[in-house]
Amino acid sequence: MATNGCSTSGFLSVAVEAAKDAGEVIRKGFHQTKCVEHKGSVDLVTETDKACEELIFSKLKRKFPEHKFIGEETSAISGIDELTDDPTWIVDPLDGTTNFVHGFPYVCVSIGLTINKIPTIGVVYNPILDELYTAVRGQGAFLNGTAIKVSSQNELVKSLLATEVGTKRDKKNIDQITNRINSLLSKVRSVRMSGSCAMNLCCVARGQVDIFYEIGFGGPWDVAAGAVIVQEAGGVVFDPSGGDFDVTSHRISATNGHLKDLFVEALMEQQIE
Amino acid sequence: MATNGCSTSGFLSVAVEAAKDAGEVIRKGFHQTKCVEHKGSVDLVTETDKACEELIFSKLKRKFPEHKFIGEETSAISGIDELTDDPTWIVDPLDGTTNFVHGFPYVCVSIGLTINKIPTIGVVYNPILDELYTAVRGQGAFLNGTAIKVSSQNELVKSLLATEVGTKRDKKNIDQITNRINSLLSKVRSVRMSGSCAMNLCCVARGQVDIFYEIGFGGPWDVAAGAVIVQEAGGVVFDPSGGDFDVTSHRISATNGHLKDLFVEALMEQQIE
Repeated sequence: MATNGCSTSGFLSVAVEAAKDAGEVIRKGFHQTKCVEHKGSVDLVTETDKACEELIFSKLKRKFPEHKFIGEETSAISGIDELTDDPTWIVDPLDGTTNFVHGFPYVCVSIGLTINKIPTIGVVYNPILDELYTAVRGQGAFLNGTAIKVSSQNELVKSLLATEVGTKRDKKNIDQITNRINSLLSKVRSVRMSGSCAMNLCCVARGQVDIFYEIGFGGPWDVAAGAVIVQEAGGVVFDPSGGDFDVTSHRISATNGHLKDLFVEALMEQQIE
Repeated sequence: MATNGCSTSGFLSVAVEAAKDAGEVIRKGFHQTKCVEHKGSVDLVTETDKACEELIFSKLKRKFPEHKFIGEETSAISGIDELTDDPTWIVDPLDGTTNFVHGFPYVCVSIGLTINKIPTIGVVYNPILDELYTAVRGQGAFLNGTAIKVSSQNELVKSLLATEVGTKRDKKNIDQITNRINSLLSKVRSVRMSGSCAMNLCCVARGQVDIFYEIGFGGPWDVAAGAVIVQEAGGVVFDPSGGDFDVTSHRISATNGHLKDLFVEALMEQQIE
């Protein structure tokens, strides 16, 4: 496979550079008045999203012209090309756009690389909290250069759960989301909602929360980087049904090895479809 | 009224000093393994809570021996003395104990002073994010010394809402909490849950979120400081029914002047009791 003679560490360093450049743009815009454009009734896209995606893709395409590219801004408009076995960069230039607009600090750049459809490189950079999460498949996960690992919690009732209410506001969706929370509340310690799917995955990876799940998020750009970061931090990433994780499925759960089965069982009692 | 010859700015500086001292204890403990003791099935109290409350009360009592004192750790055990018109320090030495135990960064010291039952001084210090929120009644609200104000949002559908799922896990409570969220989800942009009542109030005060409400939180120590910080940032604090805020009621809403009536109407559709 053509990889431009570059090792995975070469891929990582370019991705980190791109994430930091985009992060600088996000940081500058964070406290300014934003020019907001609506995608849907509650989703937002800003000039910053677009500028960051151009910046990241331009850098990655210059270094890796033979790779494929999926980005939130371009692909959400033109449709996602089928994910192939080719090295494919999957990018969310600004995860947590609503947070960005409101000045809530859970915002990040998410840059993932899949090879043979497997998340292989993950870079998540939160320029507000100055947190750079990195992982290369088989080589561990790091926060600002220090190795991180998932929590060792093995009791569901002592677990802190992260989830999100997403952006779809039809009754069926709202009922499904709140019914799941209703059922899980008696089984876990508490619930956190940060507003960023990629940051939630990183919170699992560093053990700040024990479990994260979300069903119906925007696209593979929300999870491609975070998935490998969780896995390399010793965690597991899977479909909320307990099956294999599929980066294109808009469904994800992440936790440590102890809690997976307990959590799937608890969530299944909700008969998720 | 006896105030030890001290002005409100004198009260503030002692409270800030106490909050920073306690914050240092919290920061040191944040990344260490914690010795956790259960209050209830999902509430937690740590050695750090207790050490911080002793530290804060010892400093305040030395300076203001004639004042009254209500603290989470002491009062939750011995029962809350009735709030009088006397100057009364109301202290949560560590708001967000569950976050502290899990390493989630929304933890803070909350020190409020009521005079004639009115929240008059508020200090909230998050030692992990290094955020010091201060307010004196009639003198504005500040974050690390810089004036802050609530958001200017006037549309509910564009508003970011913070709330919490609390610590009570009986079916009636869980149903009420999730029914409110279910109903509000179609009316606001999105929901955040940080796990700290005092930090949520500060997020409203600085405009990071537009609205916060919680019904059934622990006690006045969660809100005494945050209430005056919101008010001095130009916001309003009120009972979720739309009535007057009562610091002892375990019920609070906070937002800006534009959104109050819209939010109360939206929440009332849930027939809260």
